[in-house]
Amino acid sequence: MTNVQRGLAEMIGTFWLVFGGCGSAVFSAAFPDVGIGLLGVSLAFGLTVLTMAYSIGHISGCHLNPAVTLGLWAGGRFPAKDIPLYVIAQVIGAVIAAALLYHIASGAPGYTGGVASNGFGAHSPGGYVMMAGLLIEVVLTFMFLLIILGSTDSRAPAGFAPIAIGLALTLIHLISIPVTNTSVNPARSTGPALIEGGIALEQLWLFWVAPIAGALLAGLAYKVLGADAGARPPVEGEALP
Amino acid sequence: MTNVQRGLAEMIGTFWLVFGGCGSAVFSAAFPDVGIGLLGVSLAFGLTVLTMAYSIGHISGCHLNPAVTLGLWAGGRFPAKDIPLYVIAQVIGAVIAAALLYHIASGAPGYTGGVASNGFGAHSPGGYVMMAGLLIEVVLTFMFLLIILGSTDSRAPAGFAPIAIGLALTLIHLISIPVTNTSVNPARSTGPALIEGGIALEQLWLFWVAPIAGALLAGLAYKVLGADAGARPPVEGEALP
Amino acid sequence: MTNVQRGLAEMIGTFWLVFGGCGSAVFSAAFPDVGIGLLGVSLAFGLTVLTMAYSIGHISGCHLNPAVTLGLWAGGRFPAKDIPLYVIAQVIGAVIAAALLYHIASGAPGYTGGVASNGFGAHSPGGYVMMAGLLIEVVLTFMFLLIILGSTDSRAPAGFAPIAIGLALTLIHLISIPVTNTSVNPARSTGPALIEGGIALEQLWLFWVAPIAGALLAGLAYKVLGADAGARPPVEGEALP
Amino acid sequence: MTNVQRGLAEMIGTFWLVFGGCGSAVFSAAFPDVGIGLLGVSLAFGLTVLTMAYSIGHISGCHLNPAVTLGLWAGGRFPAKDIPLYVIAQVIGAVIAAALLYHIASGAPGYTGGVASNGFGAHSPGGYVMMAGLLIEVVLTFMFLLIILGSTDSRAPAGFAPIAIGLALTLIHLISIPVTNTSVNPARSTGPALIEGGIALEQLWLFWVAPIAGALLAGLAYKVLGADAGARPPVEGEALP
Repeated sequence: MTNVQRGLAEMIGTFWLVFGGCGSAVFSAAFPDVGIGLLGVSLAFGLTVLTMAYSIGHISGCHLNPAVTLGLWAGGRFPAKDIPLYVIAQVIGAVIAAALLYHIASGAPGYTGGVASNGFGAHSPGGYVMMAGLLIEVVLTFMFLLIILGSTDSRAPAGFAPIAIGLALTLIHLISIPVTNTSVNPARSTGPALIEGGIALEQLWLFWVAPIAGALLAGLAYKVLGADAGARPPVEGEALP
Repeated sequence: MTNVQRGLAEMIGTFWLVFGGCGSAVFSAAFPDVGIGLLGVSLAFGLTVLTMAYSIGHISGCHLNPAVTLGLWAGGRFPAKDIPLYVIAQVIGAVIAAALLYHIASGAPGYTGGVASNGFGAHSPGGYVMMAGLLIEVVLTFMFLLIILGSTDSRAPAGFAPIAIGLALTLIHLISIPVTNTSVNPARSTGPALIEGGIALEQLWLFWVAPIAGALLAGLAYKVLGADAGARPPVEGEALP
Repeated sequence: MTNVQRGLAEMIGTFWLVFGGCGSAVFSAAFPDVGIGLLGVSLAFGLTVLTMAYSIGHISGCHLNPAVTLGLWAGGRFPAKDIPLYVIAQVIGAVIAAALLYHIASGAPGYTGGVASNGFGAHSPGGYVMMAGLLIEVVLTFMFLLIILGSTDSRAPAGFAPIAIGLALTLIHLISIPVTNTSVNPARSTGPALIEGGIALEQLWLFWVAPIAGALLAGLAYKVLGADAGARPPVEGEALP
Repeated sequence: MTNVQRGLAEMIGTFWLVFGGCGSAVFSAAFPDVGIGLLGVSLAFGLTVLTMAYSIGHISGCHLNPAVTLGLWAGGRFPAKDIPLYVIAQVIGAVIAAALLYHIASGAPGYTGGVASNGFGAHSPGGYVMMAGLLIEVVLTFMFLLIILGSTDSRAPAGFAPIAIGLALTLIHLISIPVTNTSVNPARSTGPALIEGGIALEQLWLFWVAPIAGALLAGLAYKVLGADAGARPPVEGEALP
């Protein structure tokens, strides 16, 4: 794969994560009487990753998330020199998705302009204070990376990692949408924050700091747990060699 | 497999997609107090494809959708000469399903005659304008085909494509039922439109144009991403050689 | 495996199908405010089969359903001489489950005695007439058996059949709980009917006739579609040789 | 793997089970209008096990539950000498999770201090009497262990056990949250009981006695069903040799 192809894959994949995850929240979560609720949104976020991991995993490794890229680097699975390419492609994909979402949502009567940004305190869905948001984003991203590193370990059964990783993101949303609207992904937070501006943009720093901190800690922790450093086929959410 | 067997498989499979997907919407979505809602309908549509892909994938490739057939052709995976057989079989299956659905639903008190047709503007569940519907159908079918082409790529893990493709259709419905009632499939739109007539039939053109446009674009895009043209076992949603 | 072991496995497995599926309906479907609804019950029924198919598939083939046993026989996958053993074990398991369910449910205040029996007309959840119930049970069992025969075909990917078959049962419930409370399984209908008596018992005949008719038709139809008669490992919902 | 690594993996995994399962209940189950309900909580519990089994299965076997550890021992799959290490690590992980959950939940206005403890009688969500709770916990843990023993049997398809086992836990919650808030896991019950104290702590004995009784019975039952005692790769929820 060329760098252009890998960057395009990350851009399209992160587009899908934000368009599908935030889109399900914007269009369907609170639809009268038959809305999908937070359970449907949680499933949607997870399925964006599951579907992409099976379809572009062999192209880019399907990170779709700067915290994943950095956590894989910390775990010795991704080369430092490719970090900028991946992170920039991810952020571009997320911004395009949020903009397109805003454009389509504007085609309905009564749309008020939100695209599912993340937040804490006054901008937390359940009114959780900043420290609660910070703590849960660190813990959940830590566990997310541990699942990614473990399920793509050469000793784990081959082919199942996209299921484990995608459904881990569903689980993470089931837990924490009320707290921060769930990020664990700085790119996913950046797209909607740029479109919405205001408080979403002011609070964006936390959704870079906390997920990346959790991811780096997981990279180290997995080594303590006895990480293998063996090469793996690039199909399953793992960096290309 | 003979052409008769392949055509029959596509007909039965598309019957299942419309009977299961639209049927869950008609019978169960708004059932009092315990209805399955849009989340249940989304799951039902996806599971029709997942279950059929595992059971008739080895017979016909399990397209169940003219946009899929044309997208696979654009991606170099399906011969042009078989397109008419597949598309005709798919439309016949969808029409039979919608008719049977109407017949069974008529057996309940108070049935008003809908069989979950697609629409925009006045016929969009959430009142979305035509351009919003057109745009989202193009984008979602584009991503659907990218997932089909990617997950049946010879470099993707074998056997998992039906999970990725079926759950992609679930995800697509989680996002877009409020916008167009979700098509991404001209056959699925045609069955109910013929039974309902009226506005559903007048708006049917969009649900042929938009999904096919998105699918053809995806066929080209996957080549840019570095598609393999290698042969694959026909089990996983892919055309027979 | 001895016949005793195979019969025990079918009995325990059908116990699980009825205890889990009907139990989720009795205990959780309409729990105030946070009940699981018909979507949760649909998932529960499917997961009883998915979990059993992975854990006793290698012992008995995991039919758990007289219609499945007869459909596999019609499709040339199961010997006639073992039909009585399987059907009797299935019915016993279902009756034990319904009795235990009744006993546990009686431990809550205000329990009114239902154990999720099947019905039509006055006993249909949505008031569907008998012909609607008969028709949908035939069609759904036909498709269920087609999925079982197809996904355990030697040309289908190995190991995935329990996912396809279990989630097919979920899909079938998503469609049809409002019509008949969903049977497609004479044993599942018999357990609750014997405990409840009355109208459930009077209408029980339909839930033997319709599922078995649909299953036998599917056995024949799969031959038209080009069934393979090849031997398969007994893991995946298929009869032992 | 060293004992430290195996103990750490069990501790982190059980932390995830309690943090994710009980956390989804505390934060999201009854969120206004769009809450995930008991269906979402059931899915969350199951996904904690599914995700961990794929990521630490190769380290510790991923028991996350003293009843599982004892049931595997009764089934001849786990050495007696390692039981204390596993059970202690599991309880520590559960306690840390409940404490952290309490701390984060305290960051929202109006939090009343619950962390999803188990109970019966006055402390049962649906008011079920003690014998109902005892009985259902024995039955459900019995079936849970049968599924674990069966799906990790060397004759079952490789790699799928985490799906079967995780979704079995989802199914078990779909059935029984109204009865006991669902335990089938003494460690999961102990964490919240220690944080909440009071009636949760007084009733904790039942959630050690009943799950362990069910698990030991299942270990014996699986031998009657013709258990294989063959070695298996440690990936799939099974003890290391």
